[in-house]
Amino acid sequence: MRGCTAMKKPILNQRVGLVAAVLGFLLANAALSFTQQNGIDAYREPATRIIGAALGDRFAWERLAELSDNIGNRLSGSPQLEQAILWAVDQMKKDGLANVRAEKVMVPHWVRGKESCEVTSPAQRPLVMLGLGNSVGTPHEGIEAEILVVRSFAELDARADQVRGKIVVYNAPYTGYGPTVQYRSAGASRAARLGAVAALVRSVGMPGLRTPHTGALDYSADVPRIPAAAITLEDAETLQRMQDRGVPVKVRLKMEAQMLPDAESANVVAELVGREKPEEVIVIGGHLDSWDVGTGSTDDGGGCVAAWSALRILKRLGMQPRRTIRVVLFTNEENGLRGGMAYRDRYQDQLANHVLMLESDSGVYRPLGFGFSGNDKARASIQEIATLLRGIGADRISAGGGGGDIGPAVVQGRIPSMSLEVDGSEYFRVHHTPADTIDKINPTDLALGVAAIAVMSYVVADRPARLGQ
Amino acid sequence: MRGCTAMKKPILNQRVGLVAAVLGFLLANAALSFTQQNGIDAYREPATRIIGAALGDRFAWERLAELSDNIGNRLSGSPQLEQAILWAVDQMKKDGLANVRAEKVMVPHWVRGKESCEVTSPAQRPLVMLGLGNSVGTPHEGIEAEILVVRSFAELDARADQVRGKIVVYNAPYTGYGPTVQYRSAGASRAARLGAVAALVRSVGMPGLRTPHTGALDYSADVPRIPAAAITLEDAETLQRMQDRGVPVKVRLKMEAQMLPDAESANVVAELVGREKPEEVIVIGGHLDSWDVGTGSTDDGGGCVAAWSALRILKRLGMQPRRTIRVVLFTNEENGLRGGMAYRDRYQDQLANHVLMLESDSGVYRPLGFGFSGNDKARASIQEIATLLRGIGADRISAGGGGGDIGPAVVQGRIPSMSLEVDGSEYFRVHHTPADTIDKINPTDLALGVAAIAVMSYVVADRPARLGQ
Repeated sequence: MRGCTAMKKPILNQRVGLVAAVLGFLLANAALSFTQQNGIDAYREPATRIIGAALGDRFAWERLAELSDNIGNRLSGSPQLEQAILWAVDQMKKDGLANVRAEKVMVPHWVRGKESCEVTSPAQRPLVMLGLGNSVGTPHEGIEAEILVVRSFAELDARADQVRGKIVVYNAPYTGYGPTVQYRSAGASRAARLGAVAALVRSVGMPGLRTPHTGALDYSADVPRIPAAAITLEDAETLQRMQDRGVPVKVRLKMEAQMLPDAESANVVAELVGREKPEEVIVIGGHLDSWDVGTGSTDDGGGCVAAWSALRILKRLGMQPRRTIRVVLFTNEENGLRGGMAYRDRYQDQLANHVLMLESDSGVYRPLGFGFSGNDKARASIQEIATLLRGIGADRISAGGGGGDIGPAVVQGRIPSMSLEVDGSEYFRVHHTPADTIDKINPTDLALGVAAIAVMSYVVADRPARLGQ
Repeated sequence: MRGCTAMKKPILNQRVGLVAAVLGFLLANAALSFTQQNGIDAYREPATRIIGAALGDRFAWERLAELSDNIGNRLSGSPQLEQAILWAVDQMKKDGLANVRAEKVMVPHWVRGKESCEVTSPAQRPLVMLGLGNSVGTPHEGIEAEILVVRSFAELDARADQVRGKIVVYNAPYTGYGPTVQYRSAGASRAARLGAVAALVRSVGMPGLRTPHTGALDYSADVPRIPAAAITLEDAETLQRMQDRGVPVKVRLKMEAQMLPDAESANVVAELVGREKPEEVIVIGGHLDSWDVGTGSTDDGGGCVAAWSALRILKRLGMQPRRTIRVVLFTNEENGLRGGMAYRDRYQDQLANHVLMLESDSGVYRPLGFGFSGNDKARASIQEIATLLRGIGADRISAGGGGGDIGPAVVQGRIPSMSLEVDGSEYFRVHHTPADTIDKINPTDLALGVAAIAVMSYVVADRPARLGQ
């Protein structure tokens, strides 16, 4: 049928067809020579081997389940974080990775203790809460005071004369993490400056099921430190309605929270040593610490396991790249960033040899690609490498890539940086909650993340030209 | 253009058109005479007045918010249920309803007390739990034992020889309330029969955020009563994985739960007395009691407020139907059905004069219509009345209608029965959880439910012929 149709074409069309064919041939050749020059085609077969290995079993998910089930959550200073570090070192050695080590880092040691919050007037009713990380505690009998509910800092300032002696309740609707997290970070000190005795913050996260979201607060140095806790959307709205009806509401907050002396912790490091330029390093990683609720499976056990599994797969496939790939499971991202700062300080002299740093800390959902920060030449190369991930839909390269842990080294060493980007539509429903558990993670999505990191880091580590040069 | 087209019609078509027109006229006249005879058209204007009034403000939602915010949850025997009863009586009088009264009912008085559950071996970790209603408590120090996780009763029976001395964990995936609730109801006694010392049941509900669902259990008379609690999907799956890995797991369950002597409670009743046949009654209602978590807003504060608001609107509009409409806010649906049984017993002699009983207890979401049980003539009438609700999309009449509270009277009096049917797609995510709070209820959906109940009950109460006769 196709032949018959071609026979019917008028002469003009045949000529146009001929010109197009010649032009196409020339363009195709030019493209071929371009890719050959850059060598990306040489990586198509290795990339398929990596992808196949990542998706060939559930190893990564099972490893994350082991961390989640047997160790659980891992706040800085907790025995569980210590246990996780020892476990990771042990398993990395069993994986046959090189230079496996725990690099000592002193970390803040905040402990939650018992805590509760309840309306005491006009009638007793419990409020579901989680104290905010770094918060001071209350006296043993708690702090009981009338509340002032505000929807924003602007409303707080407008009602500045009503704040003294009150417990301020921030009832700011979640409009995205960026615009809303300021109430968790700065709310306590903003309220304390006006004389508040404690602060309650509507959880920074998507609507849940009476689900509180914890997270760190930052005290300003120049105002008294008042205790602060997250409450749920449901309870914040209830308190708002009661205030709007003109009912005076009293709340009692009890928190045993305290900051203990710094504790010893560690970044866990392992390598696949480069075969030609071992001194040039590509870092991939996540953070091993988590909040003290849930099991820290998405934040960031999964990020750690994804990066680590990428290295494990390369090792198993016997794919030793030109440069060194180093996996780092950072400590203390959540409430201090001490792991990231310690890495920067320890590797001060080697930062110039850091080719790329990649962090996975946005939840472990279906990977869509990477965010990238670096020069234009580096970006062009990354975009080219990403074409190897088109088949798994992880080939999108967005502007801006980085992460809390790699940040200090990236800034100081002006190192190109990347973040694994995933479908984040559900992340902030479980973020920093008791529901951050492994059942929220699809094993195939995790395997796809492993594949994406492995292909990207391998090709960056192996290409003849250094990234961006 | 239409005229031009008609001019071109062949003679035959014109004749067919004429015949069709005549036939159509005759059919239309027949239909008109049918509806006039049944009188449904007479209710189109009143129905629009009712719908307009229901949707004209947020009164019903605000009333439900008052119940939810100021009183909260209302388990049988609790001071809050008493408070809710007094509040409802007071408000009904203010609404100008007739014969407002609280009809004494003795109810079971189960109290939860403090409770907790944790894995103690191989490592300590908390399990999120809610004791099951009616459960006995544990000794003060709790019950600590190895667990046996099963996915079904069939697996329990297959492993009968491994049950003695264990805590049985039912990890049955939720496949709908009907097929799954048996593990909550009967799981404890099924396990006890084989020598188990306690039972944990994966929550009967849709996947949540580490969300436990409570609810009643029923003990068999012939086996020891062992304590039982609901745990979350997340924790049940964790225990399953640990068992599947061959790790022996020990759990400690502590529950102070106990059954106290029966307490005094009441059904709340109010009426719009019929203008011609006051002795013939249409009952509409829901249950005022709730579980002792959340605020019982969807189960079943909203059902109560919907039925009550329907009567309030008719009163305000001055629409006194031929027969009496009686709203009943039943007590103790959740753990005893004593309210429903007491109603049946109290009105024993009047059951023959009960024209219809309607319950709203499936959550307060967008109404879709009604389930109905009754004879064919009654069904035809109900379907006709439902056409008045086509504009609000609540005109679907399904087979089978009823409810726990109206059940005892309906069965004994062979009374036609109805349930308000709503979009139930999200109900079992919050059912019997701390997240059963008013923010889950859309004010317009509630108003639409009020409109549907008000129109249906008014027309049934007002039509010349009694329903089904």
